[in-house]
Amino acid sequence: VALSAQLLGTRATIIMPHDAPPAKLAATRGYGAHIVGYDRYQEDPAVIAQALAEREGLSFIPPFDHPQVLAGQGTCALELLEDVGALDALFVCVGGGGLISGCALAAHALAPQCQVIGVEPEAGNDVQQSLRQGHRVKIDTPKTIADGAQSRQVGEHPFAIIQSLVSDIHTVSDEQLRQTMRWYAERMKMVVEPTGCLSLAAVRQAGLALKGQRVGVIISGGNVDLGRYAQLIT
Amino acid sequence: VALSAQLLGTRATIIMPHDAPPAKLAATRGYGAHIVGYDRYQEDPAVIAQALAEREGLSFIPPFDHPQVLAGQGTCALELLEDVGALDALFVCVGGGGLISGCALAAHALAPQCQVIGVEPEAGNDVQQSLRQGHRVKIDTPKTIADGAQSRQVGEHPFAIIQSLVSDIHTVSDEQLRQTMRWYAERMKMVVEPTGCLSLAAVRQAGLALKGQRVGVIISGGNVDLGRYAQLIT
Repeated sequence: VALSAQLLGTRATIIMPHDAPPAKLAATRGYGAHIVGYDRYQEDPAVIAQALAEREGLSFIPPFDHPQVLAGQGTCALELLEDVGALDALFVCVGGGGLISGCALAAHALAPQCQVIGVEPEAGNDVQQSLRQGHRVKIDTPKTIADGAQSRQVGEHPFAIIQSLVSDIHTVSDEQLRQTMRWYAERMKMVVEPTGCLSLAAVRQAGLALKGQRVGVIISGGNVDLGRYAQLIT
Repeated sequence: VALSAQLLGTRATIIMPHDAPPAKLAATRGYGAHIVGYDRYQEDPAVIAQALAEREGLSFIPPFDHPQVLAGQGTCALELLEDVGALDALFVCVGGGGLISGCALAAHALAPQCQVIGVEPEAGNDVQQSLRQGHRVKIDTPKTIADGAQSRQVGEHPFAIIQSLVSDIHTVSDEQLRQTMRWYAERMKMVVEPTGCLSLAAVRQAGLALKGQRVGVIISGGNVDLGRYAQLIT
């Protein structure tokens, strides 16, 4: 949840959970932002952000439930498809649904035959439940190492797009995320946070079912404290 | 030190130290090679390799002291300069001298004004000593976390090129390598082995002296056991 100041050049105020990765908090401060903390398990960041925006005359920029925000997040799939051409399947990490809905719009425009598949942690499969029940299911904040996918309910804008353009939502366990982190480090020489491993973990799970297909994987992101990272890969 | 079989399609035999990173040994076996081990501190791999080549009718491919091998290693600088244009300085990790001499040839051809600077571990500065004394100095196998730069003497072919085309050789400490590994992980999301960190560690050491210059950094490589890596970054 982000608040940007109305006047260009003033400081952005960012609402982040107290237990966000220290590396993510430090990087956000490093870019010049003012951070307001909240309790991920007790408080609703949107409520805090909207109250603050009103009180201080700031513009509220939601993290995923906004047409322009999700369109911006989808530019990674746009660039991928422009670079490599049409794909048979595209696997995308799912938290609040902004990234996957933007990616689905890009895939729909550039590679309409491409199956777009979202991936959530097993413990927090609210989007999978929502897609199957046909309405936005709200869950308790899930306990998972994928801290970027601990959102409780998919956004309204993303959900409309997911319902119409996403083929399915898969889930993976925290242990599968750990194995995928190790694989990224050993084979790709990449540091990927647990949430960023969701997409490839599902591809590894699907295995032979994808044989011969052109498969794209959206990796997002790399915000992980090194001490925590060292624990997770060993 | 590598031995390739004379007949295409037969298995390569690779001479590697017993204490090479387990990840590097596993990857080499994974690519189908047969590994012959040796003691880094007691034995000369070139002697082992040549004896084996003679006995089994194999072709001996040295790791760096060969015109074609070093030219091949230099293609990374060739590609870098083709991509980004001329540079003011290019920092390159130095072990046996193959990589830097190949890079220096590429820079000389594509960016003749570019200063090529080699970087060695403090504990194993044989190339720095050689360049200053005007002949190839041989040292005991150095103790450093940069296991890829534990060579004892620069190759004859590389040294001739280094003498004519390399501006200087810098050195960095193991602690500077550790700090650079952490920086790569946190900021670039890259897993880089200690030896691969030599070049950037020297750039960080040079600091303001490089302000305003266009500086290239050759990173090589990423062979590090995850357990060891976790220790080094925490």
